Amino acid sequence: MRDFLPVAAQARNLLAPLVPGELDDERARRLYAVHTWSWLTEPGDGVAGRLVAALGHEAALNEVIAGGRDGVAKDAASIGEKEWADARARWLPRLDPDGVRQALEIARRAGLSLLTSEDAGWPAGLEDLGPHAPMLLWVRGDAGALTRTPRSVALVGARAATAYGEHVAIELAADLVAHGVSIVSGAAYGIDGAAHRAALAAGGTTVALLAGGVDRPYPTGHSQLIERVAATGAVVSEVPCGTAPTKWRFLARNRLIAALADATVVVEAGMRSGSLNTAGHAATLARPLGAVPGPVTSAASAGCHRLLREFDARCVTSADDVRELLGAEPQTLFDLAASGAHRTDDTTRVRDAMSFRSWRPTAEIARRSGLAPGDVTGILGLLALDGHVVGGGEGWRRTRHGGGG
Amino acid sequence: MRDFLPVAAQARNLLAPLVPGELDDERARRLYAVHTWSWLTEPGDGVAGRLVAALGHEAALNEVIAGGRDGVAKDAASIGEKEWADARARWLPRLDPDGVRQALEIARRAGLSLLTSEDAGWPAGLEDLGPHAPMLLWVRGDAGALTRTPRSVALVGARAATAYGEHVAIELAADLVAHGVSIVSGAAYGIDGAAHRAALAAGGTTVALLAGGVDRPYPTGHSQLIERVAATGAVVSEVPCGTAPTKWRFLARNRLIAALADATVVVEAGMRSGSLNTAGHAATLARPLGAVPGPVTSAASAGCHRLLREFDARCVTSADDVRELLGAEPQTLFDLAASGAHRTDDTTRVRDAMSFRSWRPTAEIARRSGLAPGDVTGILGLLALDGHVVGGGEGWRRTRHGGGG
Repeated sequence: MRDFLPVAAQARNLLAPLVPGELDDERARRLYAVHTWSWLTEPGDGVAGRLVAALGHEAALNEVIAGGRDGVAKDAASIGEKEWADARARWLPRLDPDGVRQALEIARRAGLSLLTSEDAGWPAGLEDLGPHAPMLLWVRGDAGALTRTPRSVALVGARAATAYGEHVAIELAADLVAHGVSIVSGAAYGIDGAAHRAALAAGGTTVALLAGGVDRPYPTGHSQLIERVAATGAVVSEVPCGTAPTKWRFLARNRLIAALADATVVVEAGMRSGSLNTAGHAATLARPLGAVPGPVTSAASAGCHRLLREFDARCVTSADDVRELLGAEPQTLFDLAASGAHRTDDTTRVRDAMSFRSWRPTAEIARRSGLAPGDVTGILGLLALDGHVVGGGEGWRRTRHGGGG
Repeated sequence: MRDFLPVAAQARNLLAPLVPGELDDERARRLYAVHTWSWLTEPGDGVAGRLVAALGHEAALNEVIAGGRDGVAKDAASIGEKEWADARARWLPRLDPDGVRQALEIARRAGLSLLTSEDAGWPAGLEDLGPHAPMLLWVRGDAGALTRTPRSVALVGARAATAYGEHVAIELAADLVAHGVSIVSGAAYGIDGAAHRAALAAGGTTVALLAGGVDRPYPTGHSQLIERVAATGAVVSEVPCGTAPTKWRFLARNRLIAALADATVVVEAGMRSGSLNTAGHAATLARPLGAVPGPVTSAASAGCHRLLREFDARCVTSADDVRELLGAEPQTLFDLAASGAHRTDDTTRVRDAMSFRSWRPTAEIARRSGLAPGDVTGILGLLALDGHVVGGGEGWRRTRHGGGG
């Protein structure tokens, strides 16, 4: 350990430009160990996660290097014999003191911030990932953007988006940021890019999660966009500077998008789109999941329809729907009163004949309203469509939802 | 009663050309009474429904005409004092022996069939309407079309359909009839018409439910289409010949569409489309309900999206989805094996490490598979998307659904 970690003063010098607040020797050593862990492991390494949760980063690192002769490390984290051997076999070949140090120097030159779970600005949602939470986040731009707004939404989707999909992404992003919601996405071509751009154009906050190091904008065609995201928002990654984006890191990155956002909305996705993976993570994390429908004749919407069908995703057609997904006050989006087409005096009589608390059979409602049960059935059907009433085994009752009128 | 109902011989003469099978005096008098009830009442009159269920059509009619002095009728059907007075006030003004008789003569000249609940060909689904079931059905064409196929689907939607909606209706109808499913709809312009036409073009069975008398094709612009439906299928209504379609009768007709079909699919619907009323009836009857998504920018799909959002309608993108809605063997529609894109040896290892019966935590699956839990989490997410595995409070297990591979 002493051979590997630098002395505290050196760690402090390397880390001071990267972190907010005071940096005493103890914190410097600890952060250096955190960084080292992010260097040793691939994103979401659960063994590493359990180990550092049990022992702390420094002691855990010590154990790994020492080989855990006394079994303290793996017992504390309930790590099996083989798992421990496998993990060490994964990690130790990456133990490269120069590389670890140089990554910090690159980060300093790039003007990055380092965010860890001990910072006030660490996004609470990441904790839901448990042992698969990131060790740290590298931020290009303003780390405060991650927690700047009370709510954030992940707008993700196909790289091979259609004009329709990009149009919807733009509409949603612009409306949401205008209502103080930040937009999280993956900086990819297609939907991701449209969402970031619209958020920026509307003067909102947007956060881009990258699969590789934040010093390596990817895709390179979006270098300028990523630069603009960093200028007012944040470009974020859990992997060290210089790390290339790989297929695995894209999948792992998707879990961060789902965990950072309060809700995930897939705008357009082919049947094999990576955004379905993000949606899967959102579902696993029990985060609200929405999908924008599109023509059934469009392959670019097939993945969204699959989410509606198989994943019980919420059908999102407007920013209002997204806000509802976020748990905002549900609005009476489709108040029949606005048209009056189906609303007659009979409707009022039916509602007057109903209770908010007791279930009443159709016959009783008909009796109380003085209408034929046949009429009452039809009116109840319309009221139910609007959420004004609800039917059950014992009859019908009024709901507070759908409200007054 | 004797003043009103004709003598049995006369009833037999009038009804014999309209019904299948033997017609003895008793049945002739009973059917005449059934027909009279359909003449006296508007569709779905629940008081009439309860009354005839309790006493039979003849005795019930007798009671109504006599005024129910002894209270037998209304006690038997649990009809309140006011309800009974209101109902008689509704029904008696329509008591017109000549009109009742003439309606049968018109029906005979039009070559119609009369179907009642005592016929073997009476569609079982109508019984789910309880006291709101139709008294009878008038059929132009082949009454057997109503029960000719083991399964039927209602394809309904906006009159103001788009080319997209009509295209989807045509595709669905053609595919479904090719698989032996009959198509039920309302003969309206737009989606209804497209569904009937496609079913006819594919040589399938289609049934049109009208809101007015079947001798009055409506809309008149669809006279020829309705003629063609009658030629191989059936054009059906519960109201007597000569009856005009009214707003109420359209709403009431919608309940018949929902009750006759094994599932209802709304292809396109504006926010106030009458097909939402049909969907509401399907939901009330606990029949499977599907909705075809479309562009969120299309007002003609807004009602469908509302059904997906608020009514938990199933997202229908293909005839396969409709068959699944009908309870056909669920297919593995989107087998990842077909692409192999996300399927690696690791996926196989994860599945091998899982049980069909026991829940196993991610950590255990990781241990058994020899993979890092982080990897296992990602793979589980993908497998879950495909329905191969399911997650719960105690971990994960494999499912039979999504199958082998």
